[in-house]
Amino acid sequence: MPALCLGSLVFLGFVPRPLFTLSDPRRAAVEAIVDEELERGEAWRKLEELCSKAPRRLSGSEGAARAVAWARETLIADGLENVHLEPCLVPRWERGSVAELAVIAPQALAGTKIPVLALGGSVATPPEGLEADLLVVRSFDELAALGERARGGFVLFDRAMDDAAYDPFDAYGGAVDQRSRGAIEGAKHGARAALVRSMTMRRDDHPHTGMMQYEEGVARIPAAAVSTNGADLLARLVAEEEPVRLRLRLDCRTLDPVPSSNVIGELSGRERPEEVVLVGGHLDAWDVGEGAHDDGAGCVESMEALRLLRKLDLRPRRTVRCVLFMNEENGLAGAQAYLAAHEGELARHVFAIESDRGGFSPRGFTSPIEGAGREELAELVALLGRTGADRLFPGGGGADIGALARYGVPLAGLYTDPQRYFDFHHSELDRLEAVHPRELELGAAALASLAWLVAEREAPLPRLPPPAPKNE
Amino acid sequence: MPALCLGSLVFLGFVPRPLFTLSDPRRAAVEAIVDEELERGEAWRKLEELCSKAPRRLSGSEGAARAVAWARETLIADGLENVHLEPCLVPRWERGSVAELAVIAPQALAGTKIPVLALGGSVATPPEGLEADLLVVRSFDELAALGERARGGFVLFDRAMDDAAYDPFDAYGGAVDQRSRGAIEGAKHGARAALVRSMTMRRDDHPHTGMMQYEEGVARIPAAAVSTNGADLLARLVAEEEPVRLRLRLDCRTLDPVPSSNVIGELSGRERPEEVVLVGGHLDAWDVGEGAHDDGAGCVESMEALRLLRKLDLRPRRTVRCVLFMNEENGLAGAQAYLAAHEGELARHVFAIESDRGGFSPRGFTSPIEGAGREELAELVALLGRTGADRLFPGGGGADIGALARYGVPLAGLYTDPQRYFDFHHSELDRLEAVHPRELELGAAALASLAWLVAEREAPLPRLPPPAPKNE
Repeated sequence: MPALCLGSLVFLGFVPRPLFTLSDPRRAAVEAIVDEELERGEAWRKLEELCSKAPRRLSGSEGAARAVAWARETLIADGLENVHLEPCLVPRWERGSVAELAVIAPQALAGTKIPVLALGGSVATPPEGLEADLLVVRSFDELAALGERARGGFVLFDRAMDDAAYDPFDAYGGAVDQRSRGAIEGAKHGARAALVRSMTMRRDDHPHTGMMQYEEGVARIPAAAVSTNGADLLARLVAEEEPVRLRLRLDCRTLDPVPSSNVIGELSGRERPEEVVLVGGHLDAWDVGEGAHDDGAGCVESMEALRLLRKLDLRPRRTVRCVLFMNEENGLAGAQAYLAAHEGELARHVFAIESDRGGFSPRGFTSPIEGAGREELAELVALLGRTGADRLFPGGGGADIGALARYGVPLAGLYTDPQRYFDFHHSELDRLEAVHPRELELGAAALASLAWLVAEREAPLPRLPPPAPKNE
Repeated sequence: MPALCLGSLVFLGFVPRPLFTLSDPRRAAVEAIVDEELERGEAWRKLEELCSKAPRRLSGSEGAARAVAWARETLIADGLENVHLEPCLVPRWERGSVAELAVIAPQALAGTKIPVLALGGSVATPPEGLEADLLVVRSFDELAALGERARGGFVLFDRAMDDAAYDPFDAYGGAVDQRSRGAIEGAKHGARAALVRSMTMRRDDHPHTGMMQYEEGVARIPAAAVSTNGADLLARLVAEEEPVRLRLRLDCRTLDPVPSSNVIGELSGRERPEEVVLVGGHLDAWDVGEGAHDDGAGCVESMEALRLLRKLDLRPRRTVRCVLFMNEENGLAGAQAYLAAHEGELARHVFAIESDRGGFSPRGFTSPIEGAGREELAELVALLGRTGADRLFPGGGGADIGALARYGVPLAGLYTDPQRYFDFHHSELDRLEAVHPRELELGAAALASLAWLVAEREAPLPRLPPPAPKNE
């Protein structure tokens, strides 16, 4: 499979690169992109800047505003065209300064603090906190089967991510209902607060936050993520039939929505400027750590993709547009605003690529495209061996571009090595130093290469079929 | 490509595992192996033990003896058969306690210490050190072209690993001649010591050691690795035409060879016990850091591979043998002793797998097998999707099993994500915490799975052709 593993072809000795580059101009472009980024790339410098200037950039925050300003200035400095902001109205939630979960009983552990973080969107506790006994469950069914047992107490949703999953994203998908709906299900059974085991496969002391929901007509109770070590401790105590009594204090709050924006820059197409290949990530991030992997990496890879094409004089046949979405984490307001603002041209969006799986070593792309279009995309992706991202996997494009499928836009998402992502995700640990410069650079090169190949292709890829009618 | 990306198939929702396991017993075995290791695996505990009990285990050292004892006890505790030591005579080199490179001139930097480590096998300097002016070159040709310029001085070989290589192992291959032959080439041109830029793509302050050679009839001069930041500083000073004068002190020494051993354990084949599938790594490691990736990871993956098969009652048709080789780093005495001790049964070695590329996320296997045998191997490897290691790449098996090719034994090496390996390789940074538990577990599962599939296969894989006659 020489086309699939260029990098490894040279195991047996030094093979001069030009051997591989002269026969196919598409391959030559990929080679030039990879060379440029690995030798003189700026993805890492961009991520350093973003993480230092706007480490905390939850939608509506001052950090988010700084991130928008930085992204706009950087796209301009990179020489992109049509750099501008597009407005959206975003929710505004503030974590506050108090997040404390203390053991009251058993007596032997009284005063012990369990690491917690409020979940995004949670209401506060009263200033003096809430005090209640703990019930531990591993599913909503188990909670329901316990009838009135949760009433007046705290519920810890303690189902761990499935260690046996190859891909931790699958394990996340099998556990995250506890975070998103734990407060709703807890409240339905009379609980006074919902605690959720952090969404990570590590056993450590770092709670991982993330979005939670309330439901109309159901009481809004505070909700917080507990570190995995903390959850293990609490579950063990309860299993030993010790009554476990806790006090929870949170002072987070929700304010009125505020204006914010997506950030956009382009390389106009040389032949069909009205046709668009979108490349993007999301600029907002949770208000812990620096959002380096989630999704600083996807943003700088997308920005860098366009800079690379411009630097290399790879002026594409169609327009390549970088879109840095606001508010992916708690509302998708940026994605919705993009759809509304561009509705008239979505039929001329020929492709969209999202990077939101962390700045790890690229392995390929996920895509929901089926049939002949999938084969055509796979043929392009197979040219990306020197980025590592030469395989096409089942899957979607990503949260910010997902809705484009309704308009027939073919989608893909960068697929990176998934093993480490949830070690950092939505926690204090998601910092610059958790990202490897070369892995990030290869991601930028992969986005640039695929965007180039699709934008340059004579015929566009087949559009997605219209969505199946819903049975209602 | 459903067979190639099982893990990712479940992106679109939860797919119960048995769907994939019932139709093909080979796939069922792989699934069971992966489940067992990811849920209850002991690869990580083994690596913790090795790194804490014998962090420094260069051939001939007390640490190496402790590692041998630990490995033997662990294989016995794991219930393996025929656990025994096989003797080999290993070189013994000691780093000593002094490694110092100090700036004498320019005056502004006098006294500055540049981080260095003696290269393995180097002679010492006189106790008071050597003092000389520095010449910086990037190749042996450049050194030769400079004629007498090196005479009486120090030479720094400063050619960096090629950033543009996708695979840092390729970049290593393009730079490591400086480390292995720098002292020889330097001495030929009259240099008093050879300094070598560390073999890493990182810019940092950690020197990376490794083996160097002397040549009969050429003066033996001291040789040391300089950190990349240190090399950059020295090269910049020299480029600014500042005379750079340094003092080097090393007190390393070579002692008489001492007896050591390979460690071996087996699962006897249920039908053809005389036919052997070998799985191995090397037990020795450089005397800095803990040798966690190089090659603690390969050792515990190999040990764990056999434990997994035994635990799961996967008694193979042929014997699966774990071989932990001694002295890969500075002599290959263990590999040679294995060949000598087993010469009579090498014709019945049906396959050999080595893991010596670090405990990173598995991507596949390298193999020199060509033709029909390659297709047969690729078909087996394609069954390993849930380990991540489902692709066959060009390449060799590894240093310890390479010579088996001369006897026709088909070879493969575990191919892991290569981007981070040289950040740690042969330096203080190669410690337990640089290894990710799940990535290590997937490596163990990949070795167990491939060993099982090959050992179980009705017909053995075609043997390698006899080596081509050498033109002499």
